[in-house]
Amino acid sequence: MSTRTGDERVGVWLFGARGSVATTTIAGAAALRHGGAPVGLVTELPDFAGHGLVPIDRLVFGGHDIIGTPLVKRLERLIAGGVLPHGLDSLVEADLTETEANLVTIEQHDVSQAEQIEAWAADIRAFAQRQQLSKVVAINVASTEAPYPPHPAHADVASLREALAGPDEVLPASSLAALAAFEAGASFIDFTPSTSIRPEAVRQYAVERGLPFGGQDAKTGETLVKSVLAPMFSARALKVHAWSGTNLLGGGDGATLADPRTAESKNTSKERGLTDMLGDVAGEVHIDYVDPMGDWKTAWDHIVFSGFLGVRMTMQFTWQGCDSALAAPLVLDLARLSAAALERGQVGAMPFLGFFFKDPIESTEHSLARQYDELVRWVREW
Amino acid sequence: MSTRTGDERVGVWLFGARGSVATTTIAGAAALRHGGAPVGLVTELPDFAGHGLVPIDRLVFGGHDIIGTPLVKRLERLIAGGVLPHGLDSLVEADLTETEANLVTIEQHDVSQAEQIEAWAADIRAFAQRQQLSKVVAINVASTEAPYPPHPAHADVASLREALAGPDEVLPASSLAALAAFEAGASFIDFTPSTSIRPEAVRQYAVERGLPFGGQDAKTGETLVKSVLAPMFSARALKVHAWSGTNLLGGGDGATLADPRTAESKNTSKERGLTDMLGDVAGEVHIDYVDPMGDWKTAWDHIVFSGFLGVRMTMQFTWQGCDSALAAPLVLDLARLSAAALERGQVGAMPFLGFFFKDPIESTEHSLARQYDELVRWVREW
Amino acid sequence: MSTRTGDERVGVWLFGARGSVATTTIAGAAALRHGGAPVGLVTELPDFAGHGLVPIDRLVFGGHDIIGTPLVKRLERLIAGGVLPHGLDSLVEADLTETEANLVTIEQHDVSQAEQIEAWAADIRAFAQRQQLSKVVAINVASTEAPYPPHPAHADVASLREALAGPDEVLPASSLAALAAFEAGASFIDFTPSTSIRPEAVRQYAVERGLPFGGQDAKTGETLVKSVLAPMFSARALKVHAWSGTNLLGGGDGATLADPRTAESKNTSKERGLTDMLGDVAGEVHIDYVDPMGDWKTAWDHIVFSGFLGVRMTMQFTWQGCDSALAAPLVLDLARLSAAALERGQVGAMPFLGFFFKDPIESTEHSLARQYDELVRWVREW
Amino acid sequence: MSTRTGDERVGVWLFGARGSVATTTIAGAAALRHGGAPVGLVTELPDFAGHGLVPIDRLVFGGHDIIGTPLVKRLERLIAGGVLPHGLDSLVEADLTETEANLVTIEQHDVSQAEQIEAWAADIRAFAQRQQLSKVVAINVASTEAPYPPHPAHADVASLREALAGPDEVLPASSLAALAAFEAGASFIDFTPSTSIRPEAVRQYAVERGLPFGGQDAKTGETLVKSVLAPMFSARALKVHAWSGTNLLGGGDGATLADPRTAESKNTSKERGLTDMLGDVAGEVHIDYVDPMGDWKTAWDHIVFSGFLGVRMTMQFTWQGCDSALAAPLVLDLARLSAAALERGQVGAMPFLGFFFKDPIESTEHSLARQYDELVRWVREW
Repeated sequence: MSTRTGDERVGVWLFGARGSVATTTIAGAAALRHGGAPVGLVTELPDFAGHGLVPIDRLVFGGHDIIGTPLVKRLERLIAGGVLPHGLDSLVEADLTETEANLVTIEQHDVSQAEQIEAWAADIRAFAQRQQLSKVVAINVASTEAPYPPHPAHADVASLREALAGPDEVLPASSLAALAAFEAGASFIDFTPSTSIRPEAVRQYAVERGLPFGGQDAKTGETLVKSVLAPMFSARALKVHAWSGTNLLGGGDGATLADPRTAESKNTSKERGLTDMLGDVAGEVHIDYVDPMGDWKTAWDHIVFSGFLGVRMTMQFTWQGCDSALAAPLVLDLARLSAAALERGQVGAMPFLGFFFKDPIESTEHSLARQYDELVRWVREW
Repeated sequence: MSTRTGDERVGVWLFGARGSVATTTIAGAAALRHGGAPVGLVTELPDFAGHGLVPIDRLVFGGHDIIGTPLVKRLERLIAGGVLPHGLDSLVEADLTETEANLVTIEQHDVSQAEQIEAWAADIRAFAQRQQLSKVVAINVASTEAPYPPHPAHADVASLREALAGPDEVLPASSLAALAAFEAGASFIDFTPSTSIRPEAVRQYAVERGLPFGGQDAKTGETLVKSVLAPMFSARALKVHAWSGTNLLGGGDGATLADPRTAESKNTSKERGLTDMLGDVAGEVHIDYVDPMGDWKTAWDHIVFSGFLGVRMTMQFTWQGCDSALAAPLVLDLARLSAAALERGQVGAMPFLGFFFKDPIESTEHSLARQYDELVRWVREW
Repeated sequence: MSTRTGDERVGVWLFGARGSVATTTIAGAAALRHGGAPVGLVTELPDFAGHGLVPIDRLVFGGHDIIGTPLVKRLERLIAGGVLPHGLDSLVEADLTETEANLVTIEQHDVSQAEQIEAWAADIRAFAQRQQLSKVVAINVASTEAPYPPHPAHADVASLREALAGPDEVLPASSLAALAAFEAGASFIDFTPSTSIRPEAVRQYAVERGLPFGGQDAKTGETLVKSVLAPMFSARALKVHAWSGTNLLGGGDGATLADPRTAESKNTSKERGLTDMLGDVAGEVHIDYVDPMGDWKTAWDHIVFSGFLGVRMTMQFTWQGCDSALAAPLVLDLARLSAAALERGQVGAMPFLGFFFKDPIESTEHSLARQYDELVRWVREW
Repeated sequence: MSTRTGDERVGVWLFGARGSVATTTIAGAAALRHGGAPVGLVTELPDFAGHGLVPIDRLVFGGHDIIGTPLVKRLERLIAGGVLPHGLDSLVEADLTETEANLVTIEQHDVSQAEQIEAWAADIRAFAQRQQLSKVVAINVASTEAPYPPHPAHADVASLREALAGPDEVLPASSLAALAAFEAGASFIDFTPSTSIRPEAVRQYAVERGLPFGGQDAKTGETLVKSVLAPMFSARALKVHAWSGTNLLGGGDGATLADPRTAESKNTSKERGLTDMLGDVAGEVHIDYVDPMGDWKTAWDHIVFSGFLGVRMTMQFTWQGCDSALAAPLVLDLARLSAAALERGQVGAMPFLGFFFKDPIESTEHSLARQYDELVRWVREW
């Protein structure tokens, strides 16, 4: 493996490339190239400087989506919704048009899942070749799927290969995306709580190919706050009795999560950290679709805890944020870190990326401070 | 110095021994002896087990106060105010009566400040001898003082000794308390933001005597939360523009802080951490005396930050807690940790206690997670 | 009908007489007799003085319940939970013991619903005779029932009588309670959203007997606030787009409402007002059972509205109250007002009591201010 | 006085004509003419229809300001700050340019206050004549002034006239504005808490001229909410113990209120209603200038109240609104209502406009619901 040279370019293949998160990521990277401040970009913090992460302006975007709306149109909608600043569209229009050429609209064909994987992998390889990319990192930012039922073929690669070649569907789209990435020699990160890399067989597949993967379910708002508050209560030996949460959001993400089956994926992922950190606590988490809120999310959390001699106290917080604007810089961070992992020959799960996720793969550490330290250690250790 | 033997007892000398925090501490320690759960006690967490900290039931309380109300009466008031559980009074009455014998009511005499220090030190020595204590740790939990004007005698021990012997007042009560502790061979912790160990001469005095000191201004509520939220924003590279806070509280502490001069001590201390962590941010902090709220405190904080591409977002939190019930277990923690420091021959400032304080002495670390790690490291390293 | 004389006593028959609301009502009325301040009692406001409402100390309590726990025990639990002040138990013990003699524990017998009504009516008549009461007012404060399926017999009194005499169940307990009250010549108020007086036949029954009835679902917290905020937005022509709410509560009421079927009754009732006041708005209402919160309820509401030229704004509120302590004085108010209605020969629905209810019977007025004016007008007009 | 004919036009003279409120008012009226929805306009509610209020498109704007920034520039800034929708500028540019011709930039001359009044009155008269207006209503939307010291000349018109002719300053700018309006035959409304019509002599002046006046201090956010919540607590006989408030805002209004002297005017006015409604309650109100919040205001209120038997409960609310967008439609409402008052020959104070104000002139009614009813009654009674 050669050392990265200055003119090397890295491909970022986004599954869900026309969604709010992807559009904000692509437009944001362009804005940074035009002089924007790198607010929200963790890998631009001083702790990460000088460790050879690929510069943002060396990232080239491509991706799949099931919809075909041009990025420029998507951007206009985000600007109208207050998610992105007015004037950004004219600034980055040329960049979006360039990226547009790298986007592939997915069509449903009557083929086996194995053939579908191969077709998607071919798209990624063509992108890499056309753009002369040294490597490609894939990231899933598509809508959250409903939980996928277990299947015997999920147990090992051999069974999976056989099943995929058959006429039946054995994996959801997110897992096909992961396998397509691995087929094309790309790393894979799941930014969502979908099934993707959960089945053991999918993970083995990556290991066989000598590729890294990571995820899942980026923590951008309520869960981010939980990941510092829960350790605070623990460190102070304060007993948490109940933690209740309500999330209000509109937009496309809200509509998806309004479906109780999708919400199940989200909630499972959201609640894992709290239980890992505090044990069993009472309280529910609601995700409500509130159309007039658009891409803005408001989360309210209410915590009941007791101090010395059992005196009951409460804390509540309200978080009002725009998920896309919080998520997009993390996508850029994960792209840079995945590229470094590929460079370093990292194989299999990347638990050191837990800092970014609600449901960190192969890790039970949820304290943001410790996750941050772990990430910095990994970046520096090479 | 001998290894601590099993039957050794440690004296805890409280300045402000009849205040809400002290009463809750003394009654709480008694309740623990009678089988209460150690909620809120950091030093009872698994991380601290097996490192020879003195057991709570080996702590013997004594102290000074300017008021003479019996502890039992003070306790009744705290119970009536909902700060402590009903039934506690009958459980711990005998313990409080025993402690009562160790409390000295301060009277104003027309003596030099040097003589006053000596008189207080004599009280502490008498306590240690009468109770056959192996060592004494002193903690200031008296009402917060107004900032004390600088004085040339604060610069070094020699000037200070000379000035103290003279007829003028050169130090506030909190600093006399610290010097009395050092005179009596005790460690000293300031739980408040008062002047106490701030003057260089007072610190030199401790070093001369080979004694440790620590503080200041325990973080029990709003600032505790700040010490995890501010690092969260930093770790995510989110730019904080404004952080505003309003604290509402009644009770004795509230009345003291309603005085703008005292509030100045409090606010300086409260705001230091935020500036150290986030640089200059807009916003003010208010402390309002609201009599009907009694010993309960409600803090509301409002934070304006921006994410990617400058999109403005906000977070707010409301903390409703009872300061005495949050503070008391920390006093017990600090007593145990001070005893360990004396045991280990620690001299001078104890920055590893920063976990407990808004304005950690000789430390610029305000991140609760890192402060916790530092504390555990110190406890374990011996 | 004679004018009420000074020594007349009014019976208050409570269905659910050992629940939190009933216990707080009975203990509270006793406390008032012993000199307590009438906080929360609307009918003690100056607007209601001098209009001949029966004094609180002339109310005599009786009632049905399916549980047999003594009132004194129930009171102790409420005191331990912080719902009622310490010391109240010794103050009112004698009063509760006296009331205890008027409580009847309901047993399930294999009888027709007509016979059950008659048995309950006999209990009420016996109470009136034994205590020499001039009149009896019945109030349902039992646990909320699930919605009851419509039945042809609900359409008119004749069909209902026939069906009740048969072997099948055609009405839920709350409706039997209403009919028993009417049989015994008592008025009936439903403090809950249960079925009770909803069927047309039950209402006709009251009218036949020349008796008044009222309800439903007392507004004590979140809905109370809604009933002033929604008219505020209307009066200012501000367009409300979404109104979301989360209610957290433990205790017996919380456990009942955790059952999705019961919650349906509650939510239907809760949401009616908002729709009547603002038309269709987005947003959901959650009622979560959070055991550690006991009898205390916390509601958080989030409102999205727009001002001039469509600028989006938000309001949120958090209400932390104790439902029993808010409900009990209203039960006393409703008892006094029902007694006045009986006195005045009021027959059928009492829409002028809408001030107290989320789902005011035969009224579409939900603005608290207008409801108050209507109530005062009714009281004064006689 | 003739009945208003269809082609009559009414002048609206704004003191502070280039401020945020004025710019939003002028641009908003233009937007309505171009088909915008009348959200936030009280006088467009059905209750006010058919009572001859002048149509919005018959209002012609003019005014004084000390700054000369063109309206179009001011509008651009408000759009950039998210106060007004993107695209509004191109829609209303022509309208603003037309209004620009009616604006007079105030210059400081070394003249007596009487001469200054005359000069301003001449500006108003010239406006009326040039635009062929049937009448002019004046409204003060300039920055809030500090409280003005009492002066003997404030007692009656005769003394005032004499003093104004002298070389000393005896009135602040807001009062000169009121007098100029009266001199020019215009009505005067103070939208701010400034001194303007507070002195008795200024009111007599209006009465002498047979003109109406009203105010003061429009309630647009926190106080609006207070004016429905306080009556709610009263109507339910719930005892309010404390009401604390914190207002965070940036922008020009924030900067003015950051000055403690100006804040005094604001606070006096804000607190009057609460005391009138609830008597003495504990708690303070803070107004903090938080530059990064721009024209958006966030208010947090915390209320401590007790229910039955003294149980303490709390309510808190957070209001996030844009003052200019809330204020502007009220300016249009007040213009229309003032025109009606002139038409009807109303002389002196207009207490029936209390619905709009924190400190309603010659009225102690602060309940929004009753104020609304009073307003509707007045509109209909003619």
